[in-house]
Amino acid sequence: MKTETASYNLLNSISDPEDLRKLSVEQLPEVCKELRQDIIKEVSCNPGHFAASLGTVELTVALHYVFNTPYDRIVWDVGHQAYGHKILTGRRETFSTNRKFKGIRPFPSPDESDYDTFTCGHASNSISAALGMAVAAEEKGEKDRHVVAVIGDGSMSGGLAFEGLNNASASSNNLLIILNDNDMAIDRSVGGMKQYLFNLTTSNRYNQLRFKISKMLFKVGILNEDRRKALIRFGNSLKSMAAQQQNIFEGMNIRYFGPINGHDVKNIARILRDIKDMKGPKILHLHTVKGKGFEPAEKAPGIWHAPGKFDPETGERFTADTHNLPPLYQDVFGETLVELAEQNPRIVGVTPAMPTGCSMNMLMKAMPDRAFDVGIAEGHAATFSGGMAKEGMQPFCNIYSSFMQRAYDNVIHDIAILKLPVVLCLDRAGLVGEDGPTHHGVFDLAYFRPIPNLTISSPMNEHELRRLMYTAQLPDKGPFVIRYPRGRGALIDWKCPLEEIPVGKGRKLKDGKDLAILTLGPIGNIAAKAIERAEKEKDISIAHYDLRFLKPLDEEMLHEIGHSFSRIITIEDGIRKGGMGSAVLEFMADNGYTPHVQRIGVPDTFIEHGTVQELYHLCGMDEKGILESIIKER
Amino acid sequence: MKTETASYNLLNSISDPEDLRKLSVEQLPEVCKELRQDIIKEVSCNPGHFAASLGTVELTVALHYVFNTPYDRIVWDVGHQAYGHKILTGRRETFSTNRKFKGIRPFPSPDESDYDTFTCGHASNSISAALGMAVAAEEKGEKDRHVVAVIGDGSMSGGLAFEGLNNASASSNNLLIILNDNDMAIDRSVGGMKQYLFNLTTSNRYNQLRFKISKMLFKVGILNEDRRKALIRFGNSLKSMAAQQQNIFEGMNIRYFGPINGHDVKNIARILRDIKDMKGPKILHLHTVKGKGFEPAEKAPGIWHAPGKFDPETGERFTADTHNLPPLYQDVFGETLVELAEQNPRIVGVTPAMPTGCSMNMLMKAMPDRAFDVGIAEGHAATFSGGMAKEGMQPFCNIYSSFMQRAYDNVIHDIAILKLPVVLCLDRAGLVGEDGPTHHGVFDLAYFRPIPNLTISSPMNEHELRRLMYTAQLPDKGPFVIRYPRGRGALIDWKCPLEEIPVGKGRKLKDGKDLAILTLGPIGNIAAKAIERAEKEKDISIAHYDLRFLKPLDEEMLHEIGHSFSRIITIEDGIRKGGMGSAVLEFMADNGYTPHVQRIGVPDTFIEHGTVQELYHLCGMDEKGILESIIKER
Repeated sequence: MKTETASYNLLNSISDPEDLRKLSVEQLPEVCKELRQDIIKEVSCNPGHFAASLGTVELTVALHYVFNTPYDRIVWDVGHQAYGHKILTGRRETFSTNRKFKGIRPFPSPDESDYDTFTCGHASNSISAALGMAVAAEEKGEKDRHVVAVIGDGSMSGGLAFEGLNNASASSNNLLIILNDNDMAIDRSVGGMKQYLFNLTTSNRYNQLRFKISKMLFKVGILNEDRRKALIRFGNSLKSMAAQQQNIFEGMNIRYFGPINGHDVKNIARILRDIKDMKGPKILHLHTVKGKGFEPAEKAPGIWHAPGKFDPETGERFTADTHNLPPLYQDVFGETLVELAEQNPRIVGVTPAMPTGCSMNMLMKAMPDRAFDVGIAEGHAATFSGGMAKEGMQPFCNIYSSFMQRAYDNVIHDIAILKLPVVLCLDRAGLVGEDGPTHHGVFDLAYFRPIPNLTISSPMNEHELRRLMYTAQLPDKGPFVIRYPRGRGALIDWKCPLEEIPVGKGRKLKDGKDLAILTLGPIGNIAAKAIERAEKEKDISIAHYDLRFLKPLDEEMLHEIGHSFSRIITIEDGIRKGGMGSAVLEFMADNGYTPHVQRIGVPDTFIEHGTVQELYHLCGMDEKGILESIIKER
Repeated sequence: MKTETASYNLLNSISDPEDLRKLSVEQLPEVCKELRQDIIKEVSCNPGHFAASLGTVELTVALHYVFNTPYDRIVWDVGHQAYGHKILTGRRETFSTNRKFKGIRPFPSPDESDYDTFTCGHASNSISAALGMAVAAEEKGEKDRHVVAVIGDGSMSGGLAFEGLNNASASSNNLLIILNDNDMAIDRSVGGMKQYLFNLTTSNRYNQLRFKISKMLFKVGILNEDRRKALIRFGNSLKSMAAQQQNIFEGMNIRYFGPINGHDVKNIARILRDIKDMKGPKILHLHTVKGKGFEPAEKAPGIWHAPGKFDPETGERFTADTHNLPPLYQDVFGETLVELAEQNPRIVGVTPAMPTGCSMNMLMKAMPDRAFDVGIAEGHAATFSGGMAKEGMQPFCNIYSSFMQRAYDNVIHDIAILKLPVVLCLDRAGLVGEDGPTHHGVFDLAYFRPIPNLTISSPMNEHELRRLMYTAQLPDKGPFVIRYPRGRGALIDWKCPLEEIPVGKGRKLKDGKDLAILTLGPIGNIAAKAIERAEKEKDISIAHYDLRFLKPLDEEMLHEIGHSFSRIITIEDGIRKGGMGSAVLEFMADNGYTPHVQRIGVPDTFIEHGTVQELYHLCGMDEKGILESIIKER
């Protein structure tokens, strides 16, 4: 393929939306062309989210052209689609730092720019947040302030979006919701709402037809005959049709416009102008193509959601040679799940819109009837799993750690109370790197530990992950949490036999006498290196224990540690407050031990984005940091 | 008013639904009459939820008559409406123990009966859970098993219900959803969905009319003239109408039936028979009257949701003389909020369907434009509050502690990350008594403590609550959690002046030298009594500190305690794992103190229902339990 030679005559003149608004409507298509080129160029060499932003180029330009940003508020849902917005709002120069440590943030963030109005990252919050802003504008008498939520059809499957819609007409406000409908979340959209939106599109054609027909009927004289009664009744019938015609949005008192072509920037701008000052909540339904304008991305928007580096001319993706690297944890999960499902007919898989991200697509391919992508709906994913488990199935419900926060009550109420055997696999646990504070899976250990009846585990490597998965699906294990990180494992030869691990049993990895180090999960591998260096550099003898289970704790092992050591260091890839280190403190206090316990983990602050390595360093969780903690005299 | 003399000829013959199914359809109205009488009689002397169960008498009888329970599964949403179900399923004899310690559980519970199929208590989970069961039945090849979810229109405002609906048609199943539409949650239903359901009812009339009209048009000859083209087009137009006619449920591929009268038991039974074996997901829309058959409850279903004791003949409610009692915490909240809102024009109130329960109805009455009942939608309540706070408003968002679990991610993602000044008031925190495990607000301290940027506080009495509320709305306080219990305060004269409390400052209530007791919240009052008794009975000197803030901790005070005491007892009305006691342990460990710390609080198990006093006793949190902990030698 070939892209046109880039020129940025107009884009170069735009340092903020004020400049954009000086242009004529006729110039907008050219702005879009340049903006799209710029996004392609930037993301090709500095990887990030890609296809979503290509799909919203025209919408972005039209929004900033028509609305008086930043006084008018645009709330982006998730924020994958907002690179164009960033480039138009003063961040073009620094865009090469996108997603890098101390650089441009991965999603819109009010801490970075006044044009970014709310936290983005977790889907489906835009309507509720924007409604809050719109209602606030009413309360403050700011009649001229417009608030726009931009939400994808994928995000519309989230219950929070529905809750926002349900309340949109409840109080006086001028909210505009833009439904960016491309039939995709990260993977393809699923569910009834998707079908409903499709029907809406189809019925719009019927709709136009219906009006033509009734006009025609009058014209050809069928209805102007002198049959008054019939005519009145026909009028009622038309009214009836009008009532029927209400779609769900109109039925909820939200004015509905569309669907329209989301790549005709002039038309979008015209319609936005037409509707922006209409009173009351309204929704504009836009059809867009994810990956628009970059052929490979249009063809495979899933792969091109976040493609890594690529050649902007040829569309060739530069994938590193991973031949001699350990596998991704997610792939170990995906392959092992298929292996287990082949043996255990009760196993089913559930994912909220992340089949590719968590590699449940492997089960979907191997056993399509036994894998369920429920859309962006973490709460439902957990409760639905609970329902299946209640009837004797063995669900593996895979939810990224930070998104599991959305299913917190569901796990308590719909799984833990009844001790239902749902295996909750938390991918992306711990610091995840470039996706930043909304995506770090650092709270799960602390928020699940207080919940009765949960088993909570974390594997130190791929073998342990496989064994924990095997163990979790054995009879009578109850609800079973397995958390593991983003990225690669520690072992190249990862296909070990599937063997049971006794629940609540940790492992002593290494003897020692001066100090005990307790770790949970893969960070134990970093700790092991730090221990080796510490023993080499200092006259110190260190024992290393892999807890494996945060709950139940290995009390026998902890008694041994409490008896033998006056100094303990705990290390976890999670928030320190309330996590594994606290569990150890509680055990020691409850059992009358008084060792000095030092807890290494994520401090009490939201950690920004950067490489995992940079963030581990920041938190003193890398080899060097751990080493310093070990050799620091207290 | 007069109720008819009770006779239970039929009900006496029903020991389980098998007996019910032996009766003729003609006998069902009499069964309903007796069942209704029995509910009125039971609840009048043994208080519980009332009006909701009166509204579902006919539905309950019809369901157990038509379906082969318990093989067929009925999933009740929330469970307020399930007393009839309990009485028909073998619990009539023991129903007098309803809601009592060790007695019948407040909501359906599979731990109690095979007829109870899933955890009930938190709204909107029934569709997802039942869908899981229906899909499991498919997976297991149980083609003859029916699964029915019964959900109220109030619960339909919850996002989880929408997520369930959105997935209902995604895979093969025979789920039947019964929409029990009485225009009420506990208070009146709100939001667009309510409007939509109303439109649906109205348009059903149009619908019938439309078919009559088109039949009539043909009959009177308007359309049988020889105008072929027009006719074809009119046919298309009819098709168009058919497409329009799809309501949201049909649009999501869920077959829709209704609405029908929910008090005509024979007709309900007939329709259930007709539709039960239809393939695929379906919804039956029923209109019911909350409180049906008991006149006072029909007139004021809100008050009669859970009326306390009453005279079944006269409808007189027996309310205790509360003249000399301290106020309810919720009323202190409600009145203080109005007081603050009069002074601070930025204050707004947000409640998810609990205006009466949390007393925000006071603000709704005083300043209707500044109070928002968003329906059963805790996630939206939090995010909506975040949006308002972002624009300079000062929301007080009141959510019961156990329901706040539903908004966990919203608090993290949409409030805490941006440090937005939302005051999160957690009513019903701690053990709540008769509502049991789903409603105990025991996890909040542990689940909020790990979240950066939150201030977390709990008042020991009404004065402290008022002062904390005043403090929280002062400028630059960021997100501010105030948790307080169900029930009455400690002070009769509760209207103190509104003064600022320094954030993160605790109080020393009493000096002492042998032991320091640290409490958080109203349980401090029980501790004070235990301390007094301990000092009287034993030669021991006890210091008492009220932490007030779980976060930030009063480090100065804790240093003093760490320096001065080798023995500490912490007491909190919440789960021990990860809570306030753990915070104290962490502080002591981080700062090199090694006191013996004993943590009193809720153990690591789901606590059943009973009076608060009984449950405190169970957990060693009553005066006697605390005293024993104090005087126990270690």
